[in-house]
Amino acid sequence: MFKQTKFDLPQSKLPTAWYNIQADLPVPLPPQYNPVTKELLAPADLEPLFARKLIEQEVSKERYIDIPGEVLDKYKLWRPTTLHRALALEEYLGTPARIYYKYEGMNAAGSHKPNSAIPQVYYNKKEGISRLTTETGAGQWGSSLAMACAFFGLECKVYMVAASYKQKPHRKTMMETWGAQCVSSPSQDTQIGRNILATDPDCGGSLGLAISEALEDALNRNDTHYTLGSVLNHVILHQSIIGLESMEQLKIAGEEGADIVIGCAGGGSNLGGICVPYVKQKLEGRNIRIIAVEPAAAPSLTKGKYTYDYGDVAGLTPIMKMYTLGHTFMPAPVHAGGLRFHGMAPIISHLRHLDLIEALAVNQNNTFKAGVIFAGTEGIISAPESMHAIHAAIEEANKCKESKEEKVILFNLSGHGHFDMSAYQQYLNGSLEKYEYSCDEVEKSLQELPLVKE
Amino acid sequence: MFKQTKFDLPQSKLPTAWYNIQADLPVPLPPQYNPVTKELLAPADLEPLFARKLIEQEVSKERYIDIPGEVLDKYKLWRPTTLHRALALEEYLGTPARIYYKYEGMNAAGSHKPNSAIPQVYYNKKEGISRLTTETGAGQWGSSLAMACAFFGLECKVYMVAASYKQKPHRKTMMETWGAQCVSSPSQDTQIGRNILATDPDCGGSLGLAISEALEDALNRNDTHYTLGSVLNHVILHQSIIGLESMEQLKIAGEEGADIVIGCAGGGSNLGGICVPYVKQKLEGRNIRIIAVEPAAAPSLTKGKYTYDYGDVAGLTPIMKMYTLGHTFMPAPVHAGGLRFHGMAPIISHLRHLDLIEALAVNQNNTFKAGVIFAGTEGIISAPESMHAIHAAIEEANKCKESKEEKVILFNLSGHGHFDMSAYQQYLNGSLEKYEYSCDEVEKSLQELPLVKE
Repeated sequence: MFKQTKFDLPQSKLPTAWYNIQADLPVPLPPQYNPVTKELLAPADLEPLFARKLIEQEVSKERYIDIPGEVLDKYKLWRPTTLHRALALEEYLGTPARIYYKYEGMNAAGSHKPNSAIPQVYYNKKEGISRLTTETGAGQWGSSLAMACAFFGLECKVYMVAASYKQKPHRKTMMETWGAQCVSSPSQDTQIGRNILATDPDCGGSLGLAISEALEDALNRNDTHYTLGSVLNHVILHQSIIGLESMEQLKIAGEEGADIVIGCAGGGSNLGGICVPYVKQKLEGRNIRIIAVEPAAAPSLTKGKYTYDYGDVAGLTPIMKMYTLGHTFMPAPVHAGGLRFHGMAPIISHLRHLDLIEALAVNQNNTFKAGVIFAGTEGIISAPESMHAIHAAIEEANKCKESKEEKVILFNLSGHGHFDMSAYQQYLNGSLEKYEYSCDEVEKSLQELPLVKE
Repeated sequence: MFKQTKFDLPQSKLPTAWYNIQADLPVPLPPQYNPVTKELLAPADLEPLFARKLIEQEVSKERYIDIPGEVLDKYKLWRPTTLHRALALEEYLGTPARIYYKYEGMNAAGSHKPNSAIPQVYYNKKEGISRLTTETGAGQWGSSLAMACAFFGLECKVYMVAASYKQKPHRKTMMETWGAQCVSSPSQDTQIGRNILATDPDCGGSLGLAISEALEDALNRNDTHYTLGSVLNHVILHQSIIGLESMEQLKIAGEEGADIVIGCAGGGSNLGGICVPYVKQKLEGRNIRIIAVEPAAAPSLTKGKYTYDYGDVAGLTPIMKMYTLGHTFMPAPVHAGGLRFHGMAPIISHLRHLDLIEALAVNQNNTFKAGVIFAGTEGIISAPESMHAIHAAIEEANKCKESKEEKVILFNLSGHGHFDMSAYQQYLNGSLEKYEYSCDEVEKSLQELPLVKE
C-alpha cells in the first residue's frame, strides 16, 4: 500500500502573512525596561540598534502581518519546507503514534534561521542601513544573516562564540563565501571582548557575551545596525511561518491537527516558530501539549527563575522578564551551541509561565543517542540542537506505545548537523562529555536579580 | 506578480519504474570482455561481485524496469526532489534564458548517489549478501552506501581515496554514524593497497585504485559483494529517476521541455541520470543539446581515447569500451574528488561517440567562480563536482543573452558542498591550484590500449 511520507505545500500556498501571538495572549507580555535608566523602555530607545519596522513588529498586536514581496521572493528559494512523516522511525520504535517532522534544514544556511534573517536584512536595507552585526552560537544564525546580506548587498560582521568557532571552522568559510566577516568571540575588536580576554585569554565565550560585542560594534557606527536571531518578539513573528505551513501540511496528510508539538529551545526561535499557531488553537480549546526541550547545561525554563534580566552579559539589551539562569551564567560548551543561552525568549517564557507550554531538560549524551537512531532510520544527520526535539519525540512515541494511543506528534527538525561531525565523532568514540548545569553557579548568577522591581 | 520558483512533484507521482536507455539506442553498446581471459564477458563472470538482479539490469533491453516497493519506500524519505527555477541567478546574469536546476543534494547523504545505493543494497540483501564493499572519491557515494546499508541492516566497508580522506575527514564520521567502516585508500587492508604504499607511502590515491581495493576485498569473502556508484549501466538505470521526475516538473512549470541539459561527468552517473530521458526525446526528433562537463584534470571525454580499457588500476573490472585516459593515469587532486576518474561510463561514452551528447572540460578555478556566484544568488553552497554544471549553465545563459534567445536550460545540481568548505577556503584565499591534465602522462597511459581488439 502506498503510504505518503513527504508532504509538500505548493509554492502558491506559501503563507503571505506572519502570525503574531501577541494578538491572542490572554495576558499581555510584561513591559521591558531601558538597560541604562531602568525606566520603561520606549520604542525610540531601540532605534540606534534596530530598523523602525522591526521595532513596530516587536510591540505590534496585529494578528497577521503581511510578508513583503521581496522577502517572499527570497523565501521562495527554499520555502515551503517539507513536512515528513517519520514512518521509518515509527516502525523502528513500534509505536502507534504518527510522528511528523517539519524539516527546516533544507536551505543553504542549514536551519530555520533564514526565516528571520531575510526580513531583518530587508527592513534594514529599506531604512538605509548598509552594515549589520550579529552574534552566532553554532553558526546557524551567522550563516543565515551572511546569506541574507549577500542577497540584499549589505556588509555583515558576525561574532561567533569561541567554543563553536573552534569546533566548526567551516561555518566561518561558509559566511565568507557569502561575503561576510566572522571573528571568534570574545574578540579584540570590542572593548567588552578585550576586557574579557585580558582576564581570561582562553574564554570559550557564550551567546550572551557575543551579543554584547555585536551590540557595542553597532552602537559605535552610524551605518550599522544590530540583528538578533532569537529571543525577540519580531524573530518569533517571522518564524511563525514554520507553524503556519505545518498546519496546512498536516491537513494534506489527512490529520485533524497535532496532539503534541515539540521544539528545542535555546533562545526560543524555532520552538516559537512552530508552536505559536498551535498555542492559538490551544487557547481556542483544542487539547494540545507543547514541549520545549532544552539542554541540561543551560536549563533556563526548568531550573531558572522567571524574573527581570538582561539578554546579554554586558547589560546592553533591554531588561526583559524571562526565565533566566542569570546573565553572568556561562553554560558548559555543549555541542548544541545554539542552545547555550542563559535566558529564554520573553514570549516563550510568558507561555511557560501561563502553563501553555511544558519544558524538559536533556543531557547531551541522550540527545546524541536519539540523533543516531534518527540517522539510521530517517537518514538525516541532524544538528545537535534539533536532537533535543528528536529525543522528546521518541520519548512521547514510546509513551504512546505503552498506552496504545495513536497520537499525532509533530516536531521541528530545525537544522542539519553537517558542520557538527566532530561532535558525532566524540559521541561515537564515547568521549562526549555529559555537561549538566551547576546549582552553585546558577545561585550565584541569580543573586543580583531582578534588575528592576517586579 | 507571483513567480513560482520551486516545483515539487507530489509524492503520489513518484516514478515507479526506471528508464533504460539501452532499449532505445540506435546502435547497441559494444560488448565487454573478461579481464583475465580477455574473452567475451559472460553474466556468470560477474556473479562473485554483483547481485544477479543487478547483472540482469546491466544487460537488459527492457525500456522500463519496475522499482521494487521496498526501494520506493526508502526513496520516499526525500523523493521526489525539487526542481528550482534559478530566477535570482537569471536576474544576476541578465539573461532571457530560463534556468532550472534539479537539486539532488537535499537528502541525508547529500547527493544523487542514494538513488543507486538503495536498490543495490536491497537486491544484495535479497540474495543473501550480508556485507558490501565500495570505493568513494569525494565521499558522496560512500556516505550513500553507508546510509543504505543502515536502512537494510548490512555491513559496509568503504575505501576512500586518500586525497579526499584528508580533505574531508567528516565524511568518515558520517559513514560511521550510519554504522559503516571507512579507510583511506591505498590501505594496508588489501594486497594492491600494500603494494602501492610500499613504493609510494604518500600516494594520494584515485578512484581507479580504490575500486581495485574494494574489488579485492569482495572477491576474498563469500558473504561480501562489491558495489559501484557510477560507470555501470545499472547505476545509470537507477539514476534515470532524476530525469524522469524533471520532465514532469518542467511540465508543471509550464515548459514544453528543455533546450539544453547539463550535468557534470566523472564516472557519468548524475549526467546519465538526468539526461537519458532527454536522449530518448532527442532520438524522437526533439532539438536538445546535452552537455557533459568534466574537470580539466581528468578530461576523458574531451582528451581521452574511445577504446577498450579497465575501469580500475589493477585490472579487476571487465574490459569496457569507453573514453579513457588510460587506467594507469592518476588525475591531479582536484577538490571535485567524484570526478577524478580515468574513464567514463560506457553508456555516456557511447552517446558521445554517436554525437548525441557534447563534452566540455573546465579548470577548477572557473568552477569555483561559478559556485560562489551561485551561492550569492540562489544561496546554495554546492559541491565542487556540481559547480562544473553551474559553470556550463552560466556560459549557456550568457550566450542566450548575446543571442537574445529564451532557451530553457536544465542542469543537475548533484550535491551540496557542506563537506568541501576547505576547498572554498582555498578558493577565497586565492590558493586554489588550477590543475590541468598532462599530455605526456596521458600519452604514456594510453600506450598499452586497447586491451582487446576493437
